[in-house]
Amino acid sequence: MDNEILKYLSKYIPITKELEEEISKIEFIKCFDKGTVLLEEGKISNECYFIIKGCIRSFYLKDGEERTTEFHTEEQAVVPSAYGSNVPSEYYLECIEDTITGVGTPELETEIYQKFPQIESLNRALGEAIMAKQQDSFAEFKMASHEEKYLALLKNRPDLLQRAPQHQIASYLGIKPESLSRIRKRIMNQK
Amino acid sequence: MDNEILKYLSKYIPITKELEEEISKIEFIKCFDKGTVLLEEGKISNECYFIIKGCIRSFYLKDGEERTTEFHTEEQAVVPSAYGSNVPSEYYLECIEDTITGVGTPELETEIYQKFPQIESLNRALGEAIMAKQQDSFAEFKMASHEEKYLALLKNRPDLLQRAPQHQIASYLGIKPESLSRIRKRIMNQK
Repeated sequence: MDNEILKYLSKYIPITKELEEEISKIEFIKCFDKGTVLLEEGKISNECYFIIKGCIRSFYLKDGEERTTEFHTEEQAVVPSAYGSNVPSEYYLECIEDTITGVGTPELETEIYQKFPQIESLNRALGEAIMAKQQDSFAEFKMASHEEKYLALLKNRPDLLQRAPQHQIASYLGIKPESLSRIRKRIMNQK
Repeated sequence: MDNEILKYLSKYIPITKELEEEISKIEFIKCFDKGTVLLEEGKISNECYFIIKGCIRSFYLKDGEERTTEFHTEEQAVVPSAYGSNVPSEYYLECIEDTITGVGTPELETEIYQKFPQIESLNRALGEAIMAKQQDSFAEFKMASHEEKYLALLKNRPDLLQRAPQHQIASYLGIKPESLSRIRKRIMNQK
């Protein structure tokens, strides 16, 4: 099975011959160069992404400054808040690495769900799992000190420290770049 | 239609006779007194809730202190992170008012989804909408100053200020009670 989407689905549901044929013939794998902006503030969003390889950053422009709020990496779904609605996006999506993704649209989703209800069930269940994880991350974020936030990142997503520049990481952690530098130095000295 | 769950569903999908009969005969409405603890840290969670009236607070115990991370109110679903898994909960759920909810279990969900796939479709779609909202709230929280957090609460959920004590509100906003008092005073003086 060389189709990445099928490989992923096969972890959760049996892949019937029919499903394999259908998914294989849809051309929804796209490659984007590093620096590609997938969505801009004020634009309508009609695409969602499932990252096979690479990294997509969400950021807002606030008082003329970029404020990074999320990094999406392998096996994560990126569903813009305004996806499939007519509401303009409040933020940007940018590939910070060369990125390979599956691309979904509301039309494609409707078509697939009609033919394969098991995929809708799967998406319902996966959606709930993602929601629970998001809920926990938000709660932990609220409770953590700046240092605890950095330590949690080191533990849970150490790859991000190699993949993104430090000022984006600071913004993602909701702390000032100077504070992040101080925290990093303090932790290095403790080792 | 005096069934609150049916009333809610009817906003999104057509209510067939069969669906009405089925939903009406399930006894999943429960009333809980103010102060009832629905879930404790370390316990397995096998129930999710849909609030018809009332308020459920999520809190963690961290260093012996209660840290409020969420208030769930009318028309919101409360799905514990560990719902339906065998993972012990990391937090508590407590009714801070007399609360009327629909109560779901994994078994009940499976049964309903099998009989009424349209409800699973609806839950998939609603789940995605909730996820998008959660994502936006988290991003806004990361970017906001303490004062902006309080102003956003005043704008989006002013009822919470009447429903919950100030120290819980402060914790929910991720700020110290003293800071919250100062912010409130400052804003009152500006008016």
